[in-house]
Amino acid sequence: MTIESMGLRAKKAAQVLSLSDGGQRNAALFAMAQALEAGQANILAANEEDLACARKNNMTQSLQDRLRLTPERVTDMRQGISNIGAEEDPLGKVLGGGTRPNGLQMQQVSVPLGVVGVIFESRPNVTADAAALCLKSGNAVILRGGKEAIRTNTAIANALRGAIAAVGLPKDCVQLVEDTSRESALALMQARGLLDVLIPRGGAGLIRAVVSQASVPVIETGAGVCHAYIDSAADLLMALNIVENAKCSRPSVCNALETVLVNAAVAPAFLPRLAARLASYPVELRCDAQALALCGGVPATKEDWSTEYGELILSIKIVQNLSEALAHIARYSTKHSECIVTNDYAAAMRFSKEVDAAAVYVNASTRFTDGGEFGFGAEIGIATQKLHARGPLGLRHLTSYKYFIFGSGQIR
Amino acid sequence: MTIESMGLRAKKAAQVLSLSDGGQRNAALFAMAQALEAGQANILAANEEDLACARKNNMTQSLQDRLRLTPERVTDMRQGISNIGAEEDPLGKVLGGGTRPNGLQMQQVSVPLGVVGVIFESRPNVTADAAALCLKSGNAVILRGGKEAIRTNTAIANALRGAIAAVGLPKDCVQLVEDTSRESALALMQARGLLDVLIPRGGAGLIRAVVSQASVPVIETGAGVCHAYIDSAADLLMALNIVENAKCSRPSVCNALETVLVNAAVAPAFLPRLAARLASYPVELRCDAQALALCGGVPATKEDWSTEYGELILSIKIVQNLSEALAHIARYSTKHSECIVTNDYAAAMRFSKEVDAAAVYVNASTRFTDGGEFGFGAEIGIATQKLHARGPLGLRHLTSYKYFIFGSGQIR
Repeated sequence: MTIESMGLRAKKAAQVLSLSDGGQRNAALFAMAQALEAGQANILAANEEDLACARKNNMTQSLQDRLRLTPERVTDMRQGISNIGAEEDPLGKVLGGGTRPNGLQMQQVSVPLGVVGVIFESRPNVTADAAALCLKSGNAVILRGGKEAIRTNTAIANALRGAIAAVGLPKDCVQLVEDTSRESALALMQARGLLDVLIPRGGAGLIRAVVSQASVPVIETGAGVCHAYIDSAADLLMALNIVENAKCSRPSVCNALETVLVNAAVAPAFLPRLAARLASYPVELRCDAQALALCGGVPATKEDWSTEYGELILSIKIVQNLSEALAHIARYSTKHSECIVTNDYAAAMRFSKEVDAAAVYVNASTRFTDGGEFGFGAEIGIATQKLHARGPLGLRHLTSYKYFIFGSGQIR
Repeated sequence: MTIESMGLRAKKAAQVLSLSDGGQRNAALFAMAQALEAGQANILAANEEDLACARKNNMTQSLQDRLRLTPERVTDMRQGISNIGAEEDPLGKVLGGGTRPNGLQMQQVSVPLGVVGVIFESRPNVTADAAALCLKSGNAVILRGGKEAIRTNTAIANALRGAIAAVGLPKDCVQLVEDTSRESALALMQARGLLDVLIPRGGAGLIRAVVSQASVPVIETGAGVCHAYIDSAADLLMALNIVENAKCSRPSVCNALETVLVNAAVAPAFLPRLAARLASYPVELRCDAQALALCGGVPATKEDWSTEYGELILSIKIVQNLSEALAHIARYSTKHSECIVTNDYAAAMRFSKEVDAAAVYVNASTRFTDGGEFGFGAEIGIATQKLHARGPLGLRHLTSYKYFIFGSGQIR
C-alpha cells in the first residue's frame, strides 16, 4: 500500500479516534495487551525468522540482541501497554481560558495531534510502545520500522490491529509500513497534509536524514553528549558514584555520560580514584594532557569532545573553573542532560541557570532523563530540540489543543 | 554578512539575553520605542525611497499600501513595542514539577527558544513587532524581510539595534538580513544548529517554500479557509451580522470568512437577506446551484471551496444538515477558524467537538482569532499546524522550557 493511501486511512481513523472517549481507548489498550499474550507464539516465531535472517547477514551481536524477543520481553511490552492504559487521559483537559471583556468565553482544551508517524530502527518493542502511546492520546499512528525486524513488527502490528478492531475502533489507528525501502521512509517524511508530526527514533544518521528531508513537522530526538562537571566544592565520593552510574549503568542510551569536566583543584584527588573505580568495567579513558598525567588512559583528540560514544569510553578534561566548564558545555553539549556535582550553592545555581539543556542536574545522575523517571508513565522519545516539547516525550506531548469560543453574536 | 556569521552572532546574543532579567529587557523595549520616535524622520525618508522604487516597478496599489509608513503607523509601531513591554515576563515561570519518589526535586521552568528566524513579506511593521516580541521573550531574532522594503526595514532595525546597545544588551539581539535574494532565504531555512525556530509570515507561496525546504524547526502560519455554518436553529439576524463582519471587516486577513454553509431549512429565508446585506460592499457571491437560485451571484467551481480569496468574494453552499456541513469543513478547512451560528445546544456542542481547527466559534465572528483579542498582548503569527503552538502565537509561545533537577547524590 502506498504511504498516501495509508495516510488517508490514518486520517479517517484519527477522526474516529478523536471522538472516542477515554474508556473506549482504555478498552482498546486492554485488548492490545491481551492480544500480545494470545499472539506470543506467532510473534516469537516471526522474530525467530528475522533472527535467522540476521545471522545469515552477519548482523552484529549487539544488533541481534536489540532485535531479539523472548517471552520475558513480550511480557514487558504487554506490561508497558497496561501501564499506559492506567495513565490519566491526556485529552479534553482544560489548559486555560477565561471570559474576554466582550463576553466571549474561551476554553483552551487538549486534543490529539492527529496522525503521528514514527520511523524507528531495530527494536521491535517500539511497535507496541508507540502504538499504545498514540492510541491512548487519540492519535492514529503510522509505524515504519527497519527491514531487519519486519516479520516481528508485522506480527505485533497485526495482533494490535485485531485487538483495536475487536473493541469497535478502526484497525487503521495502527498501521505498519510493510515496504521498508528508503523510498517509503522518504514518502513518510514528505506526506504533507497527511502527517501531523513525524518522530524519528534511532541513530544520528536517521535523525539527520529526517530533519533534512522532511517537509512534515518533526520532533527531533536523539543525540546526547552529556557532561558531568566535578566542581572544586564537590563531594568526591558522590561524584564517583554519579560518574560511574551515568557512564556505566547503560552506556548505549542517550542520557549516558560521555565527558567529565574536573575542576583543577580536585583533579589530583579525584581522577586516580575515578580511574580505579572504572577499571573493573573496563572504561576506556580519553584524557586531555593534564588529566592523562593523573589517571592514565589515552590522549583525547578534538573529535572526542563532540562524540556520543554509546559505549564504555569516557572523555576527561580538566578545567580551571566553572566558567571554563560552562564554555565547554555550551560548545559541545547536544542540550540533552548536563550535571554538576557541587556543594557550593552559588555554583549550583549558576550552572542550572546558564546551561542550555533539556535537563540540568545538580548532584544527580544524568540517567534520570527518562519519561518513566520523570513521572510521565512512558515515553515515545527524548526531544533534543526546543520546539513543542523538550526532554522526555510522554502522553501529554502527543497532544495539541484547540480553542472553544462560545459567544452570543459578538462581532469585531 | 553571511547567514552563518549572523547565526553565530545571534547565538552569542541569545546567550547573553537568556541571562538578562525582565527589567533589563523592558528597559531595552522602552529604548526601542523611543528610538522609533527619534528616528522617525529617517525611517519615513527610507520608506519614501522604497515607495519611489515601488512606483517605478509598477507595484500594485494594495502592495504599496502595505509598504507605506506614515507618522501614524510609526506611532502604532512604537505603541506596539510599549504594549509588549507592559506584558508579563514569559520567562522563568515554573510550569510544573514536584518531588520524585527518590527525592529528586524537579522544576519545569520556561526559557527562551534561543534564536528565532522570521521570513516576512512587505509590511515593515513586522520588523518592529517581531523584534519586540523576541526581545521580550529573551530570544535573539534574525529578520529577513522583502526586497521592496529593504530600506525601510534597515532604518527600523538600525534604530532598534542602537537602542538595545544603549541599555547594555548586545545589538545582535536583533539582526536584519540585508541580502534579500532567494539564496539568503534558503540559507536561513537550512541554518541547522543556528536557528531554534523559523517562522514564515506571508502568502501561501512563501509558507510552501519554507516547509518544503527548511531543515530547521518551523512554525507554519498562514492560510485560513474559514467557514460559517448557519444552522437550521440559527438566529438569522445574528448570522447576518456575523457573516458580514467575518467577510467584510478586513477581507485580506487569514481569519476572514471564505465560505458560508447554509442549512437548507433556513436558506430561503436567509440567503436573500444575506445577498441584500452584502450588496453594498459589494461582495461577489459564488454559489452552488441551490444557493444561486435563492441569492443570485455566479456559479461556484470546485476550486472555490478550497480558495482563500483574501478579498470581497464569498462562496455559498447549501447543506442538508450538520453532518454535511461537518464533512465539507473536514475536507476543505485549513484548520484555522470555524464558526457555527445556532441556538441548538446539541448542534453547538457537536460542532465544537468535531471540527478540527485552532479556534471553533459558536455564535461569534471568526475575526476574533488574533493574539490581541485572545489576550496575548500581541502576536508573531497564527499557527495552522498542531505542533508547539496552535492559533495566535504570543509571547508565551516564543518560549521553551527546561527541567531543573536538584538531587543529593541520586543514581539510577
